[in-house]
Amino acid sequence: MIFERLADSLRTAQPAALVTRLDGPQTGAKLLVHVDTAWGDLGTSGLTHAATQEARALLAAGQTAIRTFGEDGEPVGMDVRVFIQAFVPKPNMYIFGAIDFSRAMARMGKYLGYTVSVIDARPIFATKARLPDADNVIVAWPDDFLASAPVDERTVLIILTHDVKFDIPLLHVALRTTAGYIGAMGSRRTHANRIEALRRSGRSDAEIARISGPIGLDIGARTPEETAVSIAGEIIALRENRRGGRLIDGTLPVHNARLADAML
Amino acid sequence: MIFERLADSLRTAQPAALVTRLDGPQTGAKLLVHVDTAWGDLGTSGLTHAATQEARALLAAGQTAIRTFGEDGEPVGMDVRVFIQAFVPKPNMYIFGAIDFSRAMARMGKYLGYTVSVIDARPIFATKARLPDADNVIVAWPDDFLASAPVDERTVLIILTHDVKFDIPLLHVALRTTAGYIGAMGSRRTHANRIEALRRSGRSDAEIARISGPIGLDIGARTPEETAVSIAGEIIALRENRRGGRLIDGTLPVHNARLADAML
Repeated sequence: MIFERLADSLRTAQPAALVTRLDGPQTGAKLLVHVDTAWGDLGTSGLTHAATQEARALLAAGQTAIRTFGEDGEPVGMDVRVFIQAFVPKPNMYIFGAIDFSRAMARMGKYLGYTVSVIDARPIFATKARLPDADNVIVAWPDDFLASAPVDERTVLIILTHDVKFDIPLLHVALRTTAGYIGAMGSRRTHANRIEALRRSGRSDAEIARISGPIGLDIGARTPEETAVSIAGEIIALRENRRGGRLIDGTLPVHNARLADAML
Repeated sequence: MIFERLADSLRTAQPAALVTRLDGPQTGAKLLVHVDTAWGDLGTSGLTHAATQEARALLAAGQTAIRTFGEDGEPVGMDVRVFIQAFVPKPNMYIFGAIDFSRAMARMGKYLGYTVSVIDARPIFATKARLPDADNVIVAWPDDFLASAPVDERTVLIILTHDVKFDIPLLHVALRTTAGYIGAMGSRRTHANRIEALRRSGRSDAEIARISGPIGLDIGARTPEETAVSIAGEIIALRENRRGGRLIDGTLPVHNARLADAML
């Protein structure tokens, strides 16, 4: 039953995690977790619930891992290990504009596990030689490309075209997608001009608020690599509903504490 | 005279930037910039001053670049290009603890231009095979190693030992250095315990405040790579005296706007 559902998930490219219990009498018990539903039972309802939550967190990151819980799912417990196998297609990062900076951004995208495509209408700039880390280098008009490209909630759009002529049509298309991140590079003034142009052509403030501009976290990035760190940080923070800032300044638990523990 | 001083800088491994004017009647005029002093003249005092500031910013990042100014150093001007050649040894990143996460952190360190060394007392873990991106993998006690390692303001210390037995002696040594970044991984509780132990052995609050713990920016990092982004962002933000929130939430100019413009 669970394997049939898993086969369905794989056939329809739906993200799914298969959880297998590794300890105790119910060793081998299985759970199939989707973003919005789950099937199966790991032995106790607490463990099933905790493992479901953890599996969804790993689905969001596209990661497979072993996690350890108490018998009833206690997060600090060490009784039961579960193996959480994520079946998730890699998310897409589309970088619009084959400028010098695109190379550093493409490398960062690969580091974070994205399938990276760079799109530029100019064949001289959009070359694999200039962008060795990109999976795809595509010569196309950015808005035309995006209008027919696969986009879902995990898709990241990074707009480096930096020219109202190109980026306004592109932003119009971007706002019609469900992309999880829409970032546009430029100064505050450039972005204010963009907002004005989008408003004039009927985009609402709520739509415009989906655009991260100026792009990135406020870390004072100076180099292309540092700018890519700033953008990567914002992509992750938005996905996790965080505002950035230093952990030392906050009081919430460190989100990755369990991960860090698991790695030690 | 300037070349002699440059030779001195190179011989003593002191960071230095050689600035050359590329436009106008004083084309070829030169300026040698150290962190705390400068020699030479680019034509106007405003231009000399602006180029000196910019050269120091590039020294901090270890970067060489062309910058454009007005004739009297106006930042938005386009009259004069200057070539700023930084002569800076790569900064050191020391990662203490060869845990699984160290691999992702080492790769991030290389991406940002550090010479990366991973130090661990356990020969089974401290191997080049487990840490392919590290420049050096060193089997040594962390505190012994750091007591004799070269450290300056650009040096980054990342402490992953995650065990009071190792990390308290190491933090004592770290606080005696001038390292620009001292980060220690662990939960808020782990870090509270560390602070307590350091206080008991006489460290002041001002000293303890140099330690970034919990380490990193609050982006909800889930994977080793995302955690490395969070730490990299904090390293840059601290160097630049930024707090790491989203640029979209701020009102200050985007620090890298000139860089971004130069790249387009």
